[in-house]
Amino acid sequence: MSHKSPHKRLSKLRRKHRKPAGLPPGTVVHTGERVSEQVVIRAMRFTEETCDEKTLANVADVQSFLTHPGVKWIDVAGLHDTRLIEAIGKSVSIHPLAVEDIANTHQRPKIEDYPEQLIVYLRDFERDESKGLLDDQVTLILGKDYVLTFCEREPSEFDVIRERIRNKQGQLRLRDADYLLYRLLDILVDQYFELLDTHADEVDRQQAFLLEGAVGKPLLQEIMNTHDELLLLRRSIAPLKDALSALERRDSHLISPATRIYFRDVHDHAQHAAEMLDTMRELGAMSIELYISRLSLRQNDVMRVLTVIATIFLPLTFLVGIWGMNFDNMPELHWKYGYFLALGLMAIVSLFMLFYFKRKRWTHEETD
Amino acid sequence: MSHKSPHKRLSKLRRKHRKPAGLPPGTVVHTGERVSEQVVIRAMRFTEETCDEKTLANVADVQSFLTHPGVKWIDVAGLHDTRLIEAIGKSVSIHPLAVEDIANTHQRPKIEDYPEQLIVYLRDFERDESKGLLDDQVTLILGKDYVLTFCEREPSEFDVIRERIRNKQGQLRLRDADYLLYRLLDILVDQYFELLDTHADEVDRQQAFLLEGAVGKPLLQEIMNTHDELLLLRRSIAPLKDALSALERRDSHLISPATRIYFRDVHDHAQHAAEMLDTMRELGAMSIELYISRLSLRQNDVMRVLTVIATIFLPLTFLVGIWGMNFDNMPELHWKYGYFLALGLMAIVSLFMLFYFKRKRWTHEETD
Amino acid sequence: MSHKSPHKRLSKLRRKHRKPAGLPPGTVVHTGERVSEQVVIRAMRFTEETCDEKTLANVADVQSFLTHPGVKWIDVAGLHDTRLIEAIGKSVSIHPLAVEDIANTHQRPKIEDYPEQLIVYLRDFERDESKGLLDDQVTLILGKDYVLTFCEREPSEFDVIRERIRNKQGQLRLRDADYLLYRLLDILVDQYFELLDTHADEVDRQQAFLLEGAVGKPLLQEIMNTHDELLLLRRSIAPLKDALSALERRDSHLISPATRIYFRDVHDHAQHAAEMLDTMRELGAMSIELYISRLSLRQNDVMRVLTVIATIFLPLTFLVGIWGMNFDNMPELHWKYGYFLALGLMAIVSLFMLFYFKRKRWTHEETD
Amino acid sequence: MSHKSPHKRLSKLRRKHRKPAGLPPGTVVHTGERVSEQVVIRAMRFTEETCDEKTLANVADVQSFLTHPGVKWIDVAGLHDTRLIEAIGKSVSIHPLAVEDIANTHQRPKIEDYPEQLIVYLRDFERDESKGLLDDQVTLILGKDYVLTFCEREPSEFDVIRERIRNKQGQLRLRDADYLLYRLLDILVDQYFELLDTHADEVDRQQAFLLEGAVGKPLLQEIMNTHDELLLLRRSIAPLKDALSALERRDSHLISPATRIYFRDVHDHAQHAAEMLDTMRELGAMSIELYISRLSLRQNDVMRVLTVIATIFLPLTFLVGIWGMNFDNMPELHWKYGYFLALGLMAIVSLFMLFYFKRKRWTHEETD
Amino acid sequence: MSHKSPHKRLSKLRRKHRKPAGLPPGTVVHTGERVSEQVVIRAMRFTEETCDEKTLANVADVQSFLTHPGVKWIDVAGLHDTRLIEAIGKSVSIHPLAVEDIANTHQRPKIEDYPEQLIVYLRDFERDESKGLLDDQVTLILGKDYVLTFCEREPSEFDVIRERIRNKQGQLRLRDADYLLYRLLDILVDQYFELLDTHADEVDRQQAFLLEGAVGKPLLQEIMNTHDELLLLRRSIAPLKDALSALERRDSHLISPATRIYFRDVHDHAQHAAEMLDTMRELGAMSIELYISRLSLRQNDVMRVLTVIATIFLPLTFLVGIWGMNFDNMPELHWKYGYFLALGLMAIVSLFMLFYFKRKRWTHEETD
Repeated sequence: MSHKSPHKRLSKLRRKHRKPAGLPPGTVVHTGERVSEQVVIRAMRFTEETCDEKTLANVADVQSFLTHPGVKWIDVAGLHDTRLIEAIGKSVSIHPLAVEDIANTHQRPKIEDYPEQLIVYLRDFERDESKGLLDDQVTLILGKDYVLTFCEREPSEFDVIRERIRNKQGQLRLRDADYLLYRLLDILVDQYFELLDTHADEVDRQQAFLLEGAVGKPLLQEIMNTHDELLLLRRSIAPLKDALSALERRDSHLISPATRIYFRDVHDHAQHAAEMLDTMRELGAMSIELYISRLSLRQNDVMRVLTVIATIFLPLTFLVGIWGMNFDNMPELHWKYGYFLALGLMAIVSLFMLFYFKRKRWTHEETD
Repeated sequence: MSHKSPHKRLSKLRRKHRKPAGLPPGTVVHTGERVSEQVVIRAMRFTEETCDEKTLANVADVQSFLTHPGVKWIDVAGLHDTRLIEAIGKSVSIHPLAVEDIANTHQRPKIEDYPEQLIVYLRDFERDESKGLLDDQVTLILGKDYVLTFCEREPSEFDVIRERIRNKQGQLRLRDADYLLYRLLDILVDQYFELLDTHADEVDRQQAFLLEGAVGKPLLQEIMNTHDELLLLRRSIAPLKDALSALERRDSHLISPATRIYFRDVHDHAQHAAEMLDTMRELGAMSIELYISRLSLRQNDVMRVLTVIATIFLPLTFLVGIWGMNFDNMPELHWKYGYFLALGLMAIVSLFMLFYFKRKRWTHEETD
Repeated sequence: MSHKSPHKRLSKLRRKHRKPAGLPPGTVVHTGERVSEQVVIRAMRFTEETCDEKTLANVADVQSFLTHPGVKWIDVAGLHDTRLIEAIGKSVSIHPLAVEDIANTHQRPKIEDYPEQLIVYLRDFERDESKGLLDDQVTLILGKDYVLTFCEREPSEFDVIRERIRNKQGQLRLRDADYLLYRLLDILVDQYFELLDTHADEVDRQQAFLLEGAVGKPLLQEIMNTHDELLLLRRSIAPLKDALSALERRDSHLISPATRIYFRDVHDHAQHAAEMLDTMRELGAMSIELYISRLSLRQNDVMRVLTVIATIFLPLTFLVGIWGMNFDNMPELHWKYGYFLALGLMAIVSLFMLFYFKRKRWTHEETD
Repeated sequence: MSHKSPHKRLSKLRRKHRKPAGLPPGTVVHTGERVSEQVVIRAMRFTEETCDEKTLANVADVQSFLTHPGVKWIDVAGLHDTRLIEAIGKSVSIHPLAVEDIANTHQRPKIEDYPEQLIVYLRDFERDESKGLLDDQVTLILGKDYVLTFCEREPSEFDVIRERIRNKQGQLRLRDADYLLYRLLDILVDQYFELLDTHADEVDRQQAFLLEGAVGKPLLQEIMNTHDELLLLRRSIAPLKDALSALERRDSHLISPATRIYFRDVHDHAQHAAEMLDTMRELGAMSIELYISRLSLRQNDVMRVLTVIATIFLPLTFLVGIWGMNFDNMPELHWKYGYFLALGLMAIVSLFMLFYFKRKRWTHEETD
Repeated sequence: MSHKSPHKRLSKLRRKHRKPAGLPPGTVVHTGERVSEQVVIRAMRFTEETCDEKTLANVADVQSFLTHPGVKWIDVAGLHDTRLIEAIGKSVSIHPLAVEDIANTHQRPKIEDYPEQLIVYLRDFERDESKGLLDDQVTLILGKDYVLTFCEREPSEFDVIRERIRNKQGQLRLRDADYLLYRLLDILVDQYFELLDTHADEVDRQQAFLLEGAVGKPLLQEIMNTHDELLLLRRSIAPLKDALSALERRDSHLISPATRIYFRDVHDHAQHAAEMLDTMRELGAMSIELYISRLSLRQNDVMRVLTVIATIFLPLTFLVGIWGMNFDNMPELHWKYGYFLALGLMAIVSLFMLFYFKRKRWTHEETD
């Protein structure tokens, strides 16, 4: 069981909100916690026949790269250089509010429909051994023939897609930028299922411990950590699901009818993840109930031991007290076998009580 | 009461999600747990007058079989041979995303409306004595004049339908493929009621045990198993109900107006099952409340025994202690009947206390 | 308080669902529990001037009776003769699915709109002294100029309506079949209020007992019975309310505009009943909370008695133990009034403790 | 704290429903509990210049009064004379169902839109020192140029409006009947806020008591009374809010566009009241939680006292028991200062234990 | 931990509602608690080139100021001078109902759409060291080319905006009054995030304390204060979010299409705040659960100590009682080492029991 310091518990849910209040809209402030050593801009351009990759150095490169024919994918990893982000935003006509939201990495997942662009903000998760579950913002921008992606740290899933493009696997090379967006979305949503599986394992293990009878602070803390992480996940998945549903209802001219069916599929996955999450959360609530009922069961066990012991020994102690009195005239004290009769009587009383408790199953422990 | 190992508890709810992340859409990966020894393709073709059955060996057979006149029903049992599934998909023009979902047996129930096909994904349940409740995916595809069904293991209900077709019972031979789809859907949904009845019996039995006073680990574990299975059922029934409701609202050209009324009936049944499920889940929640209140009742009983015993014997022990003191000047010790007066006094004190406890009904056990 | 055997508790909620799975739609299977001795078909026909009653013997009678002018009401009591039901269904062109649902008495309340008929399925309740709350299905079919009613046992309310028709009370004789349907619906819905009043009285009495301090198995069982019956009622009332609301939205040509306002009124009553039910269910949930808090209060009382007794007598017993020791050199044992000084000291200690407990109000019982 | 007899608790929520089942619609039955000594019909008629008041004696007066020019307001206080109500209803063409609902004072709040009239049914509350919260039905009927109000007892707020009309305060004299209806509605809705404030005070006081540590039957009863009254209020406010919202959506020709904005305002107030009510109900639920946690805290305190006392005196009693044994060879009994050494040892043991309990803060009471 | 007097707890939620019942609509009554010393009217007027500020003295000044060209922003701080508010309202044609709501500072947040004006009512929060969380009403009125703001106390955020206007920062000087409204709304909504962060810190700290084992009245009171403040915040944020959503759906001609996107952004922020609030409230509910489970854990610890002590010493005391009896014939009393054998026996019994408790881990405290 992991022992995190209590003050760390909620840090994930307590995120400082974006820019300092009072800054005007469009002020690009980086609110992420990571400061990459260097911003890396990886560009890829492909048609059915050709595929071209390079690392871009500055805004001018980005702008000229986008003028080439074919589908372009430019990935900007590292958001701390806000001037660069702003410059890129300006050069590809991203709305200032959107540029602000890109750098400002605590947006709730959403999909914004600008005349020339469709912008998807979502969360990418990474489980860190020491810090627990971390989440970053990934912004995907679909233009007429390009996809721009912005992230603090490139999700490992992006390389899977790049590899497939290089190798001409699947339909990526045959289709337009909207299909590339779908593929990126799909691979990012798929990782939620892995996260949910991990949490299901945790809930499973916790409930197994509880049924075994374990109670105590570390277990309680772990149950609460799982509860908190599921809350965090819900805040990431539920709004995305709603946004995808809204995207399905209205027609964006940037998504061709042939690709639309794929977005329906992503929406379906997000819906599935949201339902799994609800199931998990119900199971989590069950853990708390279980925990409390285990505490009661344990207390019953303790109380029963006390009661059995007291019920046997209090009457016996009273009896020996009687024969310890100093009255002059206590005839049985002078019987020859008085002592042994007394011991015998006490043995009978004890046996009778033990039998009584046996019948009531009080000598049987419920937690075992 | 069944004793399952705790680590098995949630396995049903914790399903690994589909294909490894990163595979492109349309990649057909089998995620089911069963690997049938052999894929079996059973084909049936009927008109009002004729009825024809055979087992098909390969994709070419499937394709040629579908060109015959009459209503065709082809059932593919066994999904581990993904190449076969893919080939069948291609030969009957199933959308690649749908083919992927057929093999990938952890879809949430849904109904997809493709131009030439209506595809229903739903769960078929089977209760296994040792493994508990198992669920498989059954996919039903309605085309213009055929129904394709895909499953890991053929539901036993399918044979009932086949028998009725052979025997010309009911309207099956008189109607089109859409009516066959309805019959298959209807018989699959009907089994949910049997499952719910089984669970109702379990909840019933658990609550009867609880009212009898039984508490302890095996009962708690059973209550939780029921709780988990109801969660699993809800994840299967609720989305199906919603999908059927959506199907009712939009008009699929594949379902004739005359058959539409039957689909309304299936929707009504799914709705009924969903409501029964909610009732069951409320009763299940009640079990937990009952369980906790039983623990309290038992603890009250234990406490009362302790208190009655202690309240009677502590004062008596004090009294005998007094007369066991060694003061020189204790006149009553030398009275002739001092000892007997002391015993009498103690008897009176005991009787008075017993009477007091009787009046407070503390000698009456609440759990009996 | 009623003591039902625990295995009977949920029988009402656990109803076996309809026909054995696999039977085709339109297979008329009787699933009710009552087998009336004989099916009774009571027919009534009236116009403003005339009113005619007779008991029909067979399907041919039904068919010919319906050809008469005026408003016809035919009531079929007893559903176990499924062949008869089927024959009637055929003779008055009831859709086969509807005929199936009539005999199959565990439908959820619903209103179905067929081209020539409007069919209302609802629950009629009867409280049986020994078996608790029983519910039957009543099906009301509105045709152009007739109302057919099917039930296992004729609700007593039907006679009230018949009497009014005979006596020309109210508007029944002046209006069409749709108004008759309204009157039947209205009188059946009205009985829900009586049931809810009965339950309100029960909840009331239970909470009064709880506040008086009564806890124990019979009361708990009664609280749970009420809880279960309210669940049962909700399953009957909520879907009916929704169905009436849907009926209000769409226009059935079988209901004349002048009568429509009356159906709005029934809907309003059903809504009112549903809201009362929710209130009742909240109060029921409160009973459980009360019950658990009463258990805690009682345990506090028990614990306080134990603590007061132990706190007074344990120190006293220690004191008398001191002076019962056999040390050679214990000067106070030899004082002339040593014994009485010791008794006095012990009295003072006791009084002090009693005063302390008084001040903490521990001698005051909370449950009285 | 108020001590009501438990059997009175729910009477407010358990209202007998309307007419005996079986009576036809339009049967006017008075179901209120008040039987005013005499029905009082107060009529008022005003234009910008004139204002006229009189008490009407019979239906003919009502009818003729309504033919006068200007805005007419007729208030009928007392509903037990059902024949009068019926006659009035007939003379001003109120729909028979509506007349029934007027006399039948347990309607849920609703707004009915008849071709010539708009009818609002709502609840008027009055807090009676001995009987608790009472509620009456007030029915407001808006016609083309009149407002009719029916009530069992005239709400005191009506006089406020009359006074304003007489004194030409505000816009009442300048506007039509729809504005008068608004004013009456507004003043009746406003009193809900006063009621909610009273309940907020009660909840506040109860929680203050709970935090001070008070637990026991009277407090529990009071918490439950508040809970019940909030349930009652919700049943009055929530449907009214919904009805006002529906009124806003559809256009009644009886309400002029200029007045519509005022009805939006009333709707807003009802919404506000409903939200305050929800807040209050959440706080009420919190009271129950608080109550139960207080019980636990108290029990902890009691248990700690018992444990401290027993842990100190059980070992001491054992020690004195040792030296009270009658073995021949117990050397320490014969030491000169054996007794005093023994007393010293026991003092040391006690101090050590007290120190231990101090460190664990068990001597500190949590409820103080 | 803060110790507030219990009677203060709910004052924030218990607000007296507005004007005394019975006053006509449009009666301007000030219901705020602050009476500023003096009403301050600060006016600002700007175009791209010019920027002009002054303090206005009376209504005539306001009226003439608004006739100037450019965007005007007039802020009225202090609402106790209702005649002034009324006069201003009249001079700029604010609807009387709106004027009433401006002065009447307990409106629920809402947005009203009048033909010539768009009025936003929302809450501004301020945390006061001694009084806790205070909230004021701020009313923002957007006209064709002006924004009027009314507040009891000017939010500190307003100066931030003024400074930006003066310094020509951002787009404020370049755009119309609708953009100014957006900026004011945005900065006010942004402060909700700061409040939520503060509450998240509090919840965090409380749960850390709970996991450390602290229970008791001050902590409980603090948990409840947080709970109440979150309720208060929800009543402020949730209606605002709904109002902004409604504003987005309908088109106000006062907001230009170019600015509309910014209002979507504010709506998004309000939505985000509402979701954070829900998360916080769930965590708060978790605190109560934690608190109760901590109480149980503590009680278990206390009970275990009692049981261990009693189980060891009751049998020992019985044994020493045996050898303290005064029977004539007790041979072991006369053995030479009888005493030491007895002591040895008792030592063995104790060690055995300690070992038993060790194995059951009862000597291990769960709360540590």
